[in-house]
Amino acid sequence: MKAEILTIGDELLRGEIVDSNKSLMSDRLLGLDVETRYHASVGDDPVDMSDAFRRAAARSDVVLVSGGLGPTRDDLTTEVLAQTFDRPLVLDEAVLETIRAFFRGVGREMTENNAKQARFPEGAEVLPNPIGTAPGFLLAVEDAALFCMPGVPRELERMLDEQVLPRIAGLQARAASRRRAESDGKAGGRAASRRRAESDGKAGGRAASRRRAESDGPGAEVTRAPVVRAALLRTFGMGESTLDDELKDIAASGDVSLGFRTAFPDNYLRPLARAASAEEAEAKLARVCDAIRERLGPLVYGEGDETLPAVVGRLLREHGRTIAVAESCTGGLVAERITEVPGASDYFAGGVVAYANAAKTALLGVPDALLAEHGAVSEPVARAMAEGVRMRLGADFGVATTGISGPGGGGPAKPVGLVHVALARESGTHADHFVFPLDRSRHRLLTAQIALDWVRRALLGVELAGPTLMRRRGGGSAPGR
Amino acid sequence: MKAEILTIGDELLRGEIVDSNKSLMSDRLLGLDVETRYHASVGDDPVDMSDAFRRAAARSDVVLVSGGLGPTRDDLTTEVLAQTFDRPLVLDEAVLETIRAFFRGVGREMTENNAKQARFPEGAEVLPNPIGTAPGFLLAVEDAALFCMPGVPRELERMLDEQVLPRIAGLQARAASRRRAESDGKAGGRAASRRRAESDGKAGGRAASRRRAESDGPGAEVTRAPVVRAALLRTFGMGESTLDDELKDIAASGDVSLGFRTAFPDNYLRPLARAASAEEAEAKLARVCDAIRERLGPLVYGEGDETLPAVVGRLLREHGRTIAVAESCTGGLVAERITEVPGASDYFAGGVVAYANAAKTALLGVPDALLAEHGAVSEPVARAMAEGVRMRLGADFGVATTGISGPGGGGPAKPVGLVHVALARESGTHADHFVFPLDRSRHRLLTAQIALDWVRRALLGVELAGPTLMRRRGGGSAPGR
Repeated sequence: MKAEILTIGDELLRGEIVDSNKSLMSDRLLGLDVETRYHASVGDDPVDMSDAFRRAAARSDVVLVSGGLGPTRDDLTTEVLAQTFDRPLVLDEAVLETIRAFFRGVGREMTENNAKQARFPEGAEVLPNPIGTAPGFLLAVEDAALFCMPGVPRELERMLDEQVLPRIAGLQARAASRRRAESDGKAGGRAASRRRAESDGKAGGRAASRRRAESDGPGAEVTRAPVVRAALLRTFGMGESTLDDELKDIAASGDVSLGFRTAFPDNYLRPLARAASAEEAEAKLARVCDAIRERLGPLVYGEGDETLPAVVGRLLREHGRTIAVAESCTGGLVAERITEVPGASDYFAGGVVAYANAAKTALLGVPDALLAEHGAVSEPVARAMAEGVRMRLGADFGVATTGISGPGGGGPAKPVGLVHVALARESGTHADHFVFPLDRSRHRLLTAQIALDWVRRALLGVELAGPTLMRRRGGGSAPGR
Repeated sequence: MKAEILTIGDELLRGEIVDSNKSLMSDRLLGLDVETRYHASVGDDPVDMSDAFRRAAARSDVVLVSGGLGPTRDDLTTEVLAQTFDRPLVLDEAVLETIRAFFRGVGREMTENNAKQARFPEGAEVLPNPIGTAPGFLLAVEDAALFCMPGVPRELERMLDEQVLPRIAGLQARAASRRRAESDGKAGGRAASRRRAESDGKAGGRAASRRRAESDGPGAEVTRAPVVRAALLRTFGMGESTLDDELKDIAASGDVSLGFRTAFPDNYLRPLARAASAEEAEAKLARVCDAIRERLGPLVYGEGDETLPAVVGRLLREHGRTIAVAESCTGGLVAERITEVPGASDYFAGGVVAYANAAKTALLGVPDALLAEHGAVSEPVARAMAEGVRMRLGADFGVATTGISGPGGGGPAKPVGLVHVALARESGTHADHFVFPLDRSRHRLLTAQIALDWVRRALLGVELAGPTLMRRRGGGSAPGR
């Protein structure tokens, strides 16, 4: 099943917004084992839109279109689609009434502009939009199914999940049973295709297999190992390039691919396994994930959507422990990340952003003498901050950061990028320091992540490591990359 | 000049990453008055890539390509481009040596894979990449200029700014002098084109003008008002739909378009003016911006890239004032945003994240009795928090937030979404409360923005307003939208 995504709107072509809809749709399609073959964006121009619709309907089975369904004069999707495929526009009275009611419900009148949102190309199936005025629609043209959705990300996501993906899954099911019915009639069909694929061997790799599979007809789809299962493993503490090296052999094994994505300061691993059936694909994926976890140990902190603060929160709750934070250079970021997680009040006692020395003294009890002797950015002060906030808020863990995130503030003894981190607990205080030559924003992100990671490691009983010196893939080096 | 952007990579089509390169490139092109006509993405597949290159070279003058220049076997851009346009690949010894030196400098050996990054299609002009191993290149094919850049965002941005955009500006300058030379020979050419464009009037609007301009030949470009100037005005406190209403007449005036973009909790206005010359376009833009600022008053807090915390920091510094924050539901977000801005130590005394009641008492001196009588989420406690942090840290302003960001924690008297904000200063304390039925993350973002906005308004001497009840464009209503 070949899918294509087309996003419409001048604001996209002007680079005013980043196209998050497109990656959301691709990601969701992959969840149904449907791979997106093309992405395109065009402006609010009838000629460009029409060309794009025509091309998409000709080369793809499923086309997801977003944008251009609003009430303004630049919203042309419905009209252009109707013209392109020669369908009259038909007013849907029920939809019109729904739109009218929507406006009445918020104390306004529907305008004439909104009325056009109730017109659809003849033969379209309306897809309801409970959180906006523009319904979407599904139109079958040539051999393609075109799903048109509103461009507003929240409306699109909901319509995608509730209306579009189930219908695509239905199309897949029908196509699969058609194929089974056809190949039952073709003796040796599947086996012959498979032998062909094997003898072609490595020629052209993945792309060549795909092309062959498409040209061979329905039975050949099985040889393309159509079921895809993917996972996302979240790692912190080792750079992409070194991870790549570490996992080279695992990445090279057949039928699995290993993608790397840097989402600073983390690195995500995306193992993807293909097989003829769901069980096989899931088993392959599980084996790869186990191998990766065994190789990397605690560098893997979580999977899927679970952020590091969420993992830390879960562990704190499981162990019945509480935490308090004392921040200087991270300026509130550690506390903010901890409290992003719903229910953080179960384990978060509170924090202090002791940005100025006076605040370190007034709120944390750091002795003036210590500050005078060692300076704010020093190990003794980091330790005093961590222990101070732990005592004052009566928490099990106290974690502190103090450093120079830049761009200013550095000096000969203490360069920009220097940071001290300390973790205080009943058994004692651990401290370490690093120099990260990163811009201010990244310096703070990395430091905050180390602080959170130390809490995780402490609860798991593993070493409180700092990020290893890392090399960027392909060259270049910077600690923390 | 017709531009097109092509980004290459399976990870894009799998939706693993959002394509930020594309919007960056479009935005930069617009800065040169070059509008992007098409965006496309294809996977690491030679056939799809070749088709896309061919189509782009045929329909566009400038093509920006990113991705596929790395050392791995999925990096195919250079090879496929060479095959598509029938150019042999040539090894550039100087580049090879540069790559070798790059690796030596980080204590590693160059691999054979990296050597392929030193091969280019014959006739290409190499574009250096000082922060990565893969140089880019410019290849002239048919009547198009193809700029190939690495996919790593930081490397692309630098190459775009240092190598690509200056060359595009050069192409524009040469094209402009060619047009001048040609139309000097065509008596009445320009005037006739302009008359044609006028009589066609509104038929098809902007898109039709564009098509006519392109088909008429060089002289016609002038009638298309090719110089574009745009601004970004940042507003907070009024929803998109109401802004739209408020500015309807300004948006409708000729030669200017007014784009709206929601970047929650802000709304950005993007006025765009076209004219035949840079001076005219800048004058038109200035008039529109003045009109908008007059209409909206303090709702406009800044422009371009200047965030609200940066504006607040600038004002605090200008007035010689300091600020301290006491946060409950925002959990560190206000402090974090203040300290994102370099130099915040000039005016930020520090903050307290008093997440638990014990912390409110221990760190801010909020009386137990007050907490017992009114509860943590109440006006008296908000006032006490703001005044407490102000006194304890010796700041001019103390700002406090206490609320229920959800999803849990609500009750019959105090629903999820309730939040109290207080601003304490020498002249007294201002407090207000709101109910924002938003998800946790948005509730925190909006509350933090109000806190910052009150400080800005206090320094400007204007009313400490809360966000007005807003309607979403096209319908729907939710406070804070």
